[in-house]
Amino acid sequence: MAYDGRDFAGWAYQPHPPGLRTVQGELQRVLGHLFGADVDVQCAGRTDAGVHATGQVAHVDVPAWPSDVDARRINRALPDDIRITAIERAPAGFDARFAAIWRRYVYRVCDDGLGPAPLLRHLALPWPRALDVEAMNRAATPLLGEHDFAPFCKQREFATTVRGLQRLDWHRDDTGLAVMTVQADAFCHSMVRSLVGVMLPVGDGRKPEAWPRQVLDAGVRDSSVTTMPAYPLVLAEVGYPPAEDLLARQRETRSVRTRES
Amino acid sequence: MAYDGRDFAGWAYQPHPPGLRTVQGELQRVLGHLFGADVDVQCAGRTDAGVHATGQVAHVDVPAWPSDVDARRINRALPDDIRITAIERAPAGFDARFAAIWRRYVYRVCDDGLGPAPLLRHLALPWPRALDVEAMNRAATPLLGEHDFAPFCKQREFATTVRGLQRLDWHRDDTGLAVMTVQADAFCHSMVRSLVGVMLPVGDGRKPEAWPRQVLDAGVRDSSVTTMPAYPLVLAEVGYPPAEDLLARQRETRSVRTRES
Repeated sequence: MAYDGRDFAGWAYQPHPPGLRTVQGELQRVLGHLFGADVDVQCAGRTDAGVHATGQVAHVDVPAWPSDVDARRINRALPDDIRITAIERAPAGFDARFAAIWRRYVYRVCDDGLGPAPLLRHLALPWPRALDVEAMNRAATPLLGEHDFAPFCKQREFATTVRGLQRLDWHRDDTGLAVMTVQADAFCHSMVRSLVGVMLPVGDGRKPEAWPRQVLDAGVRDSSVTTMPAYPLVLAEVGYPPAEDLLARQRETRSVRTRES
Repeated sequence: MAYDGRDFAGWAYQPHPPGLRTVQGELQRVLGHLFGADVDVQCAGRTDAGVHATGQVAHVDVPAWPSDVDARRINRALPDDIRITAIERAPAGFDARFAAIWRRYVYRVCDDGLGPAPLLRHLALPWPRALDVEAMNRAATPLLGEHDFAPFCKQREFATTVRGLQRLDWHRDDTGLAVMTVQADAFCHSMVRSLVGVMLPVGDGRKPEAWPRQVLDAGVRDSSVTTMPAYPLVLAEVGYPPAEDLLARQRETRSVRTRES
């Protein structure tokens, strides 16, 4: 599914205060109405307030799928800032979150000094200094692999912050924006936006290329790493293993992972 | 310049009611402040309420350009739904409107049944039936050339509605949207949106391919032609002749054209 995160207090349903709008809440309301029964919608990446998605994945467990309910009908009932892009029947026991093997996010930054294009300004962070994409890529490489990303996470007690960072790189898109692509088995809370915050000062020359790895090695949250704004962040895609490996993958991640992914 | 038309009552400054937000009004306010003098900003295509621009062109006549005023500084003072993309010194007497030899607009339609992508829904009209782009292109060809487009224009007394239609075609973009590109020496009021309105019923098979030309030949406004919504419409580019032909072009268009372009 895809959604525009601007008018949502994030993915996760929040009963308090009443009326707080969330993606899960809207989906459960609409699907509950179409199915004539309460529905629990569980997603792969529980996005924060303001974060968008073009490739979110979620599952619902229903006794039987009503034959007259398809993506078109659900979309007609949904507000236009959420769209189901495809629906398929999953293997029994499939869990959108625990079966996922990676999440990929993108983050867009406009550093041209003139400011973001007005029609796309909801998707790009204005940055006042020119960014050296190659310098950011050199600084990103030492972060790849499995590490304790605690210095980049909002700490929660008893939750592991060890993650496997599979990809972290920057490129220029065809409009000149600097786009960060980041992929990991999972992310802890605020991790992507803290990674952006450690990369941009390298890109504009205020910090050395070695700094991001130094922050990682220090092992504790560094107050000079800014958690960047949520609105340029998009959950782009979620990866799953082949169907035959799905259930084994779920058992494995359920046993080691906590609630942060 | 580029702007997001959503929060503007069109290009043209409107003194009444006070506080009505227009692109011209915002530019004149900000430039007047930076120049320390009233500034009159004249554009090539006076877009309607809700219409966007990625390639609008405008001129200002100033005794001298302050050396400390550039596009970055103007953009910092402008609200973020307007952006100056470039500024250059024009030949003496240049007029952004009368010197222009063509305007090009694009109009985006989402006909996939699932509805527009949430992050781009402010730029695409949802259309409930699948469109045949080739059929629309065949129907468009007989409209090319110089004609009296009165059947597609909001009539204004004493204003000619003869226009030279240089391009009218549809294609699929890389996200699957149907995109109409239209280019003419100039457009009369609501003409682009009426052209969309005459094409879509051909595209979805409810009208024959000959219909748009029949509407043109009838010479009068046809109530079955809908003026489509403004929000998917973008002024993409304005064309000018080489510098040495600019002033001759202006004299010519001033003498035959009325206020509608």
